[in-house]
Amino acid sequence: MISQVASHYRDIQERACEMLENADGAAKFSRNSWEREIGSGMTRVLENGEKIEKAAINFSHVSGEYSPEMAKMAGRSAGSFAATGISSIIHPVSPMVPIIHMNIRYFELNDGASWFGGGIDLTPHYVDKAEASWFHKKLKRTCDQFDENFYPDFKKQADDYFFLPHRNETRGVGGIFFDQLEPSKEEEFDKLLGFSSALGYLYPEIYSQILGEKSKLTYTENEKSWQYLRRGRYVEFNLLYDRGTKFGLASGGNTESILLSLPSQANWQYQYVPDEGSHEEETLSLLKKDIDWINL
Amino acid sequence: MISQVASHYRDIQERACEMLENADGAAKFSRNSWEREIGSGMTRVLENGEKIEKAAINFSHVSGEYSPEMAKMAGRSAGSFAATGISSIIHPVSPMVPIIHMNIRYFELNDGASWFGGGIDLTPHYVDKAEASWFHKKLKRTCDQFDENFYPDFKKQADDYFFLPHRNETRGVGGIFFDQLEPSKEEEFDKLLGFSSALGYLYPEIYSQILGEKSKLTYTENEKSWQYLRRGRYVEFNLLYDRGTKFGLASGGNTESILLSLPSQANWQYQYVPDEGSHEEETLSLLKKDIDWINL
Repeated sequence: MISQVASHYRDIQERACEMLENADGAAKFSRNSWEREIGSGMTRVLENGEKIEKAAINFSHVSGEYSPEMAKMAGRSAGSFAATGISSIIHPVSPMVPIIHMNIRYFELNDGASWFGGGIDLTPHYVDKAEASWFHKKLKRTCDQFDENFYPDFKKQADDYFFLPHRNETRGVGGIFFDQLEPSKEEEFDKLLGFSSALGYLYPEIYSQILGEKSKLTYTENEKSWQYLRRGRYVEFNLLYDRGTKFGLASGGNTESILLSLPSQANWQYQYVPDEGSHEEETLSLLKKDIDWINL
Repeated sequence: MISQVASHYRDIQERACEMLENADGAAKFSRNSWEREIGSGMTRVLENGEKIEKAAINFSHVSGEYSPEMAKMAGRSAGSFAATGISSIIHPVSPMVPIIHMNIRYFELNDGASWFGGGIDLTPHYVDKAEASWFHKKLKRTCDQFDENFYPDFKKQADDYFFLPHRNETRGVGGIFFDQLEPSKEEEFDKLLGFSSALGYLYPEIYSQILGEKSKLTYTENEKSWQYLRRGRYVEFNLLYDRGTKFGLASGGNTESILLSLPSQANWQYQYVPDEGSHEEETLSLLKKDIDWINL
């Protein structure tokens, strides 16, 4: 099964790179294939584009024995695994354009278990309610094509997962997140592979549209500074909590590819508090769980 | 016992701030006392000085019940604890000046156990062998006043602790690190409190001397860019591995104080490789464990 999934994911990676190159209009993705003891992958990176500062779309197909640390993370005692997935993060040039992240992955264990996982979430530097609502509707429409229970379930999981407990704030306006989605029979495998792939195709479509609309907006130096502070939060989430990052580093993956999720530049400022009534303050007030973005 | 230690540590914090203000010559430390359910603390921060970009010297005195996560980190099943400590990191303006870190702490558990922990380590953006050797000699001299076994033991522990496995590099040129140093009788408590305090006084003395000598050096824009990349590694260590950060965030400490260890700005660049024969390449070649800096 896994080679079928890997083949779909490779196509999705190619297609997403093409679409995002078109949306940027200037820069191209580099192509770096890597092989290590654990498996192989293809890292594609676009840097210093006109609209995109740094985009990474990683494909990997790996297998091995669980280390004790990995087994604990997967909730298993031991065993061997095979996994394939795409992981992507895009940091835009403009603070008016959100950061976006997408991951789709498939796991097979030697005990017969297999599952899909993944998600898409949006991290605006400035929350735009209309954009967040549109984004969630796009996700819901794709989810509903496969299962009407998916969107409400996975939206809640995203709220819980993309959360910084030490800041008591969500990473952004959320999206969908799911893990250990196990196909119980063959038709279900096809359905879940279809769902996972649909998310892979939806991702560059959503971001191309946002880039086209929001990259035109002008911005100030203060707004640029705020973007660097928000990127600091993104770094905190990825290094403190992100399971993909931890699993990747613990499993001996390609460090440079895994840490492509980090922005080119991030800043920290002690006890920064936005002005009352500012857009920055409004954004902080909207970084909460359980907001019904679709019916806001 | 703990209030005696806390009282010493408060004095050390005051003294270190004074010495570092003198060394900077321009900026002053702010003073923020905080109280939470868990205890209280005093956070002192100097930002945008002439030689120091960001220095934080935190004092805290806390107590509470172990959360399951904290108990695991402390290797205990459960119970209540009291702890007091100083934690400090200084990020300089100039890339020619190293980053420095110091921590001293004392723990008491309700089962009667108590111990000291701490360390000082130096993270040059550019490794200067003479400076590293001088730094290790200063540490050894202070250690030797208390116990000749301390320096070799704690130097090795620093090499192992201040290490980024995913980069296969040490954070800098190391220093000393120790944990769970338990006083077995009262004289030993006095000795260990003396040792811990001596490190607290040594720290600003060492850094004042380095600042005085190295801040005079000129540097290029390329050297400044390299500093931002090295700070990226510092962020990776602190968020991925540093036990103090993890323990602090897990115990419900003051997030803004704990994350003062992060620099004002850090950068990441995909697959950056320094030029052959450059000072940057030389620095990478010296970020290794088990270098005998004193007899280099």
